[in-house]
Amino acid sequence: MQNFSFYSPTFFEFGKDSETKAGELVKRFGGSKVLIHYGGGSVVRSGLLYRVKKSLEKEGIDYVELGGVKPNPRSGLVYEGIDLCKKENVDFVLAVGGGSTIDSSKAIAAGVVYNGDFWDFYMGKRIEEALPVGTILTIAAAGSEGSPDSVITKEEGMFKRGATGDAIRPKFSILNPALTQTLPPYQTAAGITDIMAHLHERYLTNTKEVEVTDRLIEALLLTMVHEGPRVIEDPNNYEARANIMWAGMMAHNNCVGVGRSQDWNSHDIEHELSALYDCAHGAGLAVTMPAVFKYVYKHDVMRFAKLAVRVWGCQMDFDNPESTALAGIACLENYLRSIGMPLSFKELGAKEEDIPKLVESLCYGNGRDGNIYGFVTLNKDDCEKIYKLMVR
Amino acid sequence: MQNFSFYSPTFFEFGKDSETKAGELVKRFGGSKVLIHYGGGSVVRSGLLYRVKKSLEKEGIDYVELGGVKPNPRSGLVYEGIDLCKKENVDFVLAVGGGSTIDSSKAIAAGVVYNGDFWDFYMGKRIEEALPVGTILTIAAAGSEGSPDSVITKEEGMFKRGATGDAIRPKFSILNPALTQTLPPYQTAAGITDIMAHLHERYLTNTKEVEVTDRLIEALLLTMVHEGPRVIEDPNNYEARANIMWAGMMAHNNCVGVGRSQDWNSHDIEHELSALYDCAHGAGLAVTMPAVFKYVYKHDVMRFAKLAVRVWGCQMDFDNPESTALAGIACLENYLRSIGMPLSFKELGAKEEDIPKLVESLCYGNGRDGNIYGFVTLNKDDCEKIYKLMVR
Repeated sequence: MQNFSFYSPTFFEFGKDSETKAGELVKRFGGSKVLIHYGGGSVVRSGLLYRVKKSLEKEGIDYVELGGVKPNPRSGLVYEGIDLCKKENVDFVLAVGGGSTIDSSKAIAAGVVYNGDFWDFYMGKRIEEALPVGTILTIAAAGSEGSPDSVITKEEGMFKRGATGDAIRPKFSILNPALTQTLPPYQTAAGITDIMAHLHERYLTNTKEVEVTDRLIEALLLTMVHEGPRVIEDPNNYEARANIMWAGMMAHNNCVGVGRSQDWNSHDIEHELSALYDCAHGAGLAVTMPAVFKYVYKHDVMRFAKLAVRVWGCQMDFDNPESTALAGIACLENYLRSIGMPLSFKELGAKEEDIPKLVESLCYGNGRDGNIYGFVTLNKDDCEKIYKLMVR
Repeated sequence: MQNFSFYSPTFFEFGKDSETKAGELVKRFGGSKVLIHYGGGSVVRSGLLYRVKKSLEKEGIDYVELGGVKPNPRSGLVYEGIDLCKKENVDFVLAVGGGSTIDSSKAIAAGVVYNGDFWDFYMGKRIEEALPVGTILTIAAAGSEGSPDSVITKEEGMFKRGATGDAIRPKFSILNPALTQTLPPYQTAAGITDIMAHLHERYLTNTKEVEVTDRLIEALLLTMVHEGPRVIEDPNNYEARANIMWAGMMAHNNCVGVGRSQDWNSHDIEHELSALYDCAHGAGLAVTMPAVFKYVYKHDVMRFAKLAVRVWGCQMDFDNPESTALAGIACLENYLRSIGMPLSFKELGAKEEDIPKLVESLCYGNGRDGNIYGFVTLNKDDCEKIYKLMVR
């Protein structure tokens, strides 16, 4: 196991009606003038935004609003949010929505207190300071509610890049599984896929002797295998939603990923797809993951075989572990298909002729050196072959 | 799943040589005058105390010392520590040791800022305020390095009771697995048993639909099943020590126990044993757990069968799930035996004739109403029968 630091100081309020505590929690964590940041009309239509405002008003907390966050959140709205916060002397950013809204809120919170272009952070500068951020989560997916990370897409060039820093870890996150019951099945499934991707990215490691985190990752994958189909079959299944919601947080606050090298190649490869086609990140990952895994599994056949046996219940083929490894990847594909996710370029709306453009942006865009680094180092040629595996 | 709050703001520094960061971390979390609290001579002999002092001195941090913490830490030393901190204007308590030292440090930290007898907290008053506490852990066991709990024994009456409150959660905990390599095998095994008990106490729930926490608890138990024997066989196995150390923290900071009722009857029943005989808490738990489980398993046969199948690899007997449940408990006994733990009163040094005294203290001591409450409510008669199961 590698040496590591771990710090997850977010306060989680989990369960039915937990959003009614928003005002109390903003107050507890020092907010007096709040930016409520959200996406489209669904939080308005559902009455959630109204309830949140009531909760803030009850505590005498002032607020301004900024809606309009889109999936794959853009830098343009971040600049707008930073200006608004400065003008209105906002001292707390409250995200009401999913990972995109939370990531956009984090970017705004960091940008407000920074003398420079917030995009610097997405070019690799660590975020050391930010306004406090709170979240009210409406989809189990990104894990941004408990993470120090944010991913934003820059309109000029459509670069999708990440930034990180403990300063943007949410002070509190409100997780009410009932709020996710109104999600369309496709979005629910994309969220499930994103959670599973966060687990696979951590599972694919080159660090030896990491049984505790291996087992914890497997535990969360097993939970998703069990609960995913239940929630697709019955969107109102509160209990399945609740199990998925906690799994989604645990999958990404990194308590199951400490002390080991991680992969994140699937995420990098996918980011180009959602940046170019504006597809759901989770759907892009459903297409990406099996292709990546088929390309790299020979790097550590036993690791893929272990995943197949422990998570997918495959029988170990002791004479030919490769067949077990491949059987596990096939189980993942079947699972993703069963919850309604795409598995190919065609189903995602991606085009084979765009592959050179995707590869160029992936390997050289935004200052990259021609490779992407993870479980296996992949060069331009490897990445091209992986995208081609998605054309089927 | 039940509604819950979860908050674990401890900063963990994990790995080789991590104790050299003590000074830096005390400074980061606001300490300028430290009480270094520790147990016996082992931290002196190993040079750990010296290294910690050097690290404080390097940051210009002043300190006083109080050694002498014993296993099953006593109230007497807590009073002494409180007086010392007041006299010396201490503003930070640094525990260097295991669960006993950490629990004693937490009690001192709470007592210093409280106008009254610190024992009030151990009679049920919630701890709302305390000096900041940091820890340098020397045994993987109690999980106190990441928990809001403390257990102290009051000399008058030998009552062993717990207190809780977010204020006593450590600000930071330094976890260097190498520091645990010098532990005698018996203490190592007692620590392993304590970790496994924390997991069982959480696993035994009456809450339905808690797959995510079930799976996470099983993951940590599977880790212990794998790593425990390796570290007993080779005390210098750093990797096995590291896996156990992180499992021990995760087992007890409650991220795997949220949203579900928990048991804790085994702990209550054991506390009487270690209070009366001053045995190692983990050794007491090795004797207690199998007896409790044999007494209560019929309350939920399927839960015990699940544990047997998923953790111990037992075959499910679909015609007679009870036999699977019992097979799992037998596996636990075999495991505890294999790592050198006692399984009976005799091996522990407990006496059958003391049972009435144990039961009296357990069920009526320190304000109790005649029952203990958990997975199953146990009255005086039940507790007597459970203690008798340990006589064999």
